Amino acid sequence: MREHWDKALRILAEEALLGALGDAGIERPEAIWVGNMMSGQLSSQENLGALVADHAGLRGIEAFKVEAACASGAAAFRNAFLAVAGGMMDIVAVCGVEKMTDTMGDATTAALAGAADAVYEGEHGLSFVGLNALLMQRYMYEHGYQRRDFAGFAMTAHRNAVGNPNAMFRREISLEAFERAKPIADPVGLLDSAGIADGAAAAVLMPTAMARAHGLRCVRIKASASGTDAVALHDRRDPLVLEAGVLSSQRAYSQAGITPPELDFFELHDAFTIMSALSLEASGFAPRGGGVRLALDGEIALDGRLPIATLGGLKARGHPVGATGMYQIVEAVQQLRGDAGRNQLPNCRLGMTQNIGGSGANIVTHIFERVE
Amino acid sequence: MREHWDKALRILAEEALLGALGDAGIERPEAIWVGNMMSGQLSSQENLGALVADHAGLRGIEAFKVEAACASGAAAFRNAFLAVAGGMMDIVAVCGVEKMTDTMGDATTAALAGAADAVYEGEHGLSFVGLNALLMQRYMYEHGYQRRDFAGFAMTAHRNAVGNPNAMFRREISLEAFERAKPIADPVGLLDSAGIADGAAAAVLMPTAMARAHGLRCVRIKASASGTDAVALHDRRDPLVLEAGVLSSQRAYSQAGITPPELDFFELHDAFTIMSALSLEASGFAPRGGGVRLALDGEIALDGRLPIATLGGLKARGHPVGATGMYQIVEAVQQLRGDAGRNQLPNCRLGMTQNIGGSGANIVTHIFERVE
Repeated sequence: MREHWDKALRILAEEALLGALGDAGIERPEAIWVGNMMSGQLSSQENLGALVADHAGLRGIEAFKVEAACASGAAAFRNAFLAVAGGMMDIVAVCGVEKMTDTMGDATTAALAGAADAVYEGEHGLSFVGLNALLMQRYMYEHGYQRRDFAGFAMTAHRNAVGNPNAMFRREISLEAFERAKPIADPVGLLDSAGIADGAAAAVLMPTAMARAHGLRCVRIKASASGTDAVALHDRRDPLVLEAGVLSSQRAYSQAGITPPELDFFELHDAFTIMSALSLEASGFAPRGGGVRLALDGEIALDGRLPIATLGGLKARGHPVGATGMYQIVEAVQQLRGDAGRNQLPNCRLGMTQNIGGSGANIVTHIFERVE
Repeated sequence: MREHWDKALRILAEEALLGALGDAGIERPEAIWVGNMMSGQLSSQENLGALVADHAGLRGIEAFKVEAACASGAAAFRNAFLAVAGGMMDIVAVCGVEKMTDTMGDATTAALAGAADAVYEGEHGLSFVGLNALLMQRYMYEHGYQRRDFAGFAMTAHRNAVGNPNAMFRREISLEAFERAKPIADPVGLLDSAGIADGAAAAVLMPTAMARAHGLRCVRIKASASGTDAVALHDRRDPLVLEAGVLSSQRAYSQAGITPPELDFFELHDAFTIMSALSLEASGFAPRGGGVRLALDGEIALDGRLPIATLGGLKARGHPVGATGMYQIVEAVQQLRGDAGRNQLPNCRLGMTQNIGGSGANIVTHIFERVE
């Protein structure tokens, strides 16, 4: 994942999709779902399901694009899961893709604002970074934190990215660098923010018994859930609680029959450091206002109590919006299959991914389990 | 359906969704799917699932947007169907919506071109009407038809729209008016083309047994299928055969266990008269080049062998792109429930809808059956 100036949207998608199909030894799935947010605005291209299917040599199969802002990737995966888990289809594939560079002027910033409420937020010039700045400012004010208290999220992500060959920023950052980083929308600084990137990631879904029969190194989907909230921040009951995250994680825990402490790692949506804190709180790992403490106490490192962003997260692996949810899922699979290389967590059995659309309006949570 | 200058995208969606939920007596479905193509480009709004859910008073439920160009409505319905038919959810709702007026300059024409191949068609200035003009010209050349031979499609649609209070153009047109209509992209004239419109339509899905237990006047989904083809016309094996239509209709007939003559009506995708001809051929009602004959012979009228566009079709009811597939489905339900008013078909039992994305790249077909 990086700035792929030489690769069009369709090429990024095709490469990821064929990679996943090759890994599973599948030539032709029954259907594909494409998770993407901005192909219309940034590449003048819709009809993306059919386009990607055809370019991947899968002409004729069913194909759909699913959009849920920055949660488009996991939302596409959830739709594919519903088809397979209900027995309506057997073998399907999901690809998340976004092409964000190589655009004109401020087109990408403007398109990203479509994840917010266009009438009550975007119309007033609030960018997506601006919304996160409001949340971070309020969080610091209510809970008495300082900017530097968020540094652990960014530093951990960068440290973990060093070991991930697919990551965009494979270098560590220091606390000093975090503090010196130029402000983007105060208090959000450059190193609080995930970079704009091009990328795609894909996976193949099929019933576990079928995957085993094929001798595949598979992972079980233990839970799949989502939830929504008001799109505009001012409409939320409490802007510092991601209610969609509470809903989707509770639904996921209930499906999986587990409690948060049983999870071995959590690929969360660290588009901004404030989102990491809010996601940890919504998912039951910390009380309201306590998410930042997990970073301060070093509990989120690879050897901590709850490793997050184990392969760099959005912050350092990169955040090509519609692809991000699928990167998280692929990385969870890497950990559970033992394919995470230098960043491999020992003996991990259960991992969770959480993909956040907008400033928290649509949140999709999945729990994956190692198959013995 | 018309130009709703006073209604924003979210209002159109909310009204349709609440109408469908009210009709079914459902307060809170488990999830909604929103079919939409151009909200990002024309309303600077994505995250549309969560936005519509919240504005319809359904905050918290699962919500997704599905895009498949002009087939977005039926594609959203198909995704919802997969969840319910597989037993993963019980009660869900689907809303198709598009806001196409009240835009700047040629924004709508440019956004519509996103249904074509942006690199190989759109980049060269080919508009969506232009693509249909190429198809119509080739069809006339190969099969020896004249422009006026297509008039029956438009005249039938306009005649049927008179009896539909939701239709945009409730007036008949004459053969002379059709022939005199100004050319848009020769040979496509103004009256070959469906109008640009704002609109939304919605439906509620649940297992048939549950609907009966609730005493609802329901309709059974007998088949749900889709198929894809190359997005760019020049990549197709035969540009005059809608292979995605062949695939999706054959899959639908197979699921339903019926043959085309058993259908009592067909809500087809008459965005352009040429699409009506190609859709009839792909769905097995006429051989290659024979679709226009059905119009010339009057077989598509309300009292003909295969009534189409029974409430005005895209041509005269209007064609708000992402909503169209859901309008077709709602109209099929109206016919099968006996709610079609002046346009009611006598004793109809089986009806088919076919929603076409792009110039034929993604085609979604459904068959509905009256529940006694």
